[in-house]
Amino acid sequence: MAYETPPSAGKTLGILGGMGPLATADLYRKIVTMTPVSRDNDHIRVIIDSNARIPDRTAAILGEGPDPVPEMLSALRNLEACGVDCVIMPCNTAHYFLPRLQAETEIPFISILEVTAEACAARYPGKTAALLATDGTVRTGLYDRALEAKGVSVLHTDPAEQATVMHLIYEVVKASRPIPPEAEAWKGLLDSLRSRGADYFILGCTELPVLAETLGLPGPFVDPTAELARAAIRFCLGEAVLTSEEEGRKP
Amino acid sequence: MAYETPPSAGKTLGILGGMGPLATADLYRKIVTMTPVSRDNDHIRVIIDSNARIPDRTAAILGEGPDPVPEMLSALRNLEACGVDCVIMPCNTAHYFLPRLQAETEIPFISILEVTAEACAARYPGKTAALLATDGTVRTGLYDRALEAKGVSVLHTDPAEQATVMHLIYEVVKASRPIPPEAEAWKGLLDSLRSRGADYFILGCTELPVLAETLGLPGPFVDPTAELARAAIRFCLGEAVLTSEEEGRKP
Repeated sequence: MAYETPPSAGKTLGILGGMGPLATADLYRKIVTMTPVSRDNDHIRVIIDSNARIPDRTAAILGEGPDPVPEMLSALRNLEACGVDCVIMPCNTAHYFLPRLQAETEIPFISILEVTAEACAARYPGKTAALLATDGTVRTGLYDRALEAKGVSVLHTDPAEQATVMHLIYEVVKASRPIPPEAEAWKGLLDSLRSRGADYFILGCTELPVLAETLGLPGPFVDPTAELARAAIRFCLGEAVLTSEEEGRKP
Repeated sequence: MAYETPPSAGKTLGILGGMGPLATADLYRKIVTMTPVSRDNDHIRVIIDSNARIPDRTAAILGEGPDPVPEMLSALRNLEACGVDCVIMPCNTAHYFLPRLQAETEIPFISILEVTAEACAARYPGKTAALLATDGTVRTGLYDRALEAKGVSVLHTDPAEQATVMHLIYEVVKASRPIPPEAEAWKGLLDSLRSRGADYFILGCTELPVLAETLGLPGPFVDPTAELARAAIRFCLGEAVLTSEEEGRKP
């Protein structure tokens, strides 16, 4: 066996995580499995602060909970102390607070909203996306601005559909409850949106790819966590690394 | 929906990772899914440095590669800067270097070797464990000392079996190659050890639980990564948190 151990090249990635922890674990695993490697030293150095003390983002946006920015800044300061070259956040709703965070640091963030909008435009031109996201993400129009900038048309949930989305995020994935019994609720949600004109689905809360993967139902889906992983790998290792969609999508 | 967002209690956990990154992702996911929670803020704050620049541990032990301690210390300094209360390393072989690391910091490490030996003694009294581990772990007798201290009898691999273990670790999991085609090699290894008197198997390299889970074959196995996760959760949240084996083992 040949042991070559030069240090891995590339930049260091920072993950401002914990929103929630399972979504952070999902992002980290996707980064590891999507990076083309033949040994440990080919991987990117990744620093994660999974700060479970960050208050709920939707609650803050709706005026029902404390400002999450101080605890997000605590994690950002840790990432800065570790010398990261860029920061990503595996929480779509958290991006409402991104301008306040970016104003506090010179280190660039990669926006999950922008990379997702780019993926939608590239992969489903002329089609209609249904947005599955938290009340906080929906009410602030976070995704609408990013999607509009790329010419992506979007269908929103009605109140009953939105209640199902929030149930699946908060009372199933974040509550660490078994996912399989929720298959009917999930299927009903997608069928309902399809009947109203959705061609594909944006899993616009980072808990939802975890749910979708466990249930294994067909989308088609755009997975913002996977898009963020792909963009972060490109940032750290260079544009030429992921040679195709297939390469980037191997399990 | 009630939004309560007090900060999570408990201590902050540090993971000195990247040895390899997939094993680090496996440990982090196990910590998240084994922690009893009903919402994000019930989780432990976890800081991870997945330092892919750490040279191979077995190569260093065998005199075929550079000393990994400087890059391990780089990660340890990052974890210290982030204020962690204890450190764990999802790499069995790396524990050869633990005395040198512990001498450099006041922050306690939890040893994967010790928690695994305790699990073996408690779960399989009087039975014989087969040790599946890297050449570095085997040749240094790392596990033997920990297992002997708990009165656990251990069967070692013969040269052909050990070559299979190293193949599965380095040329499959670490090389990011598809695992399913290796099912026959894995099954043959376990059968061979069983025929020589093994009652159960210690998955004593953190790449092996990833392989075992993907292949889904019966052990019985002791998974040091899961034992380390369990011990770390107990350290951070207190002894009373995991009420039973079942609770700690939910997926």
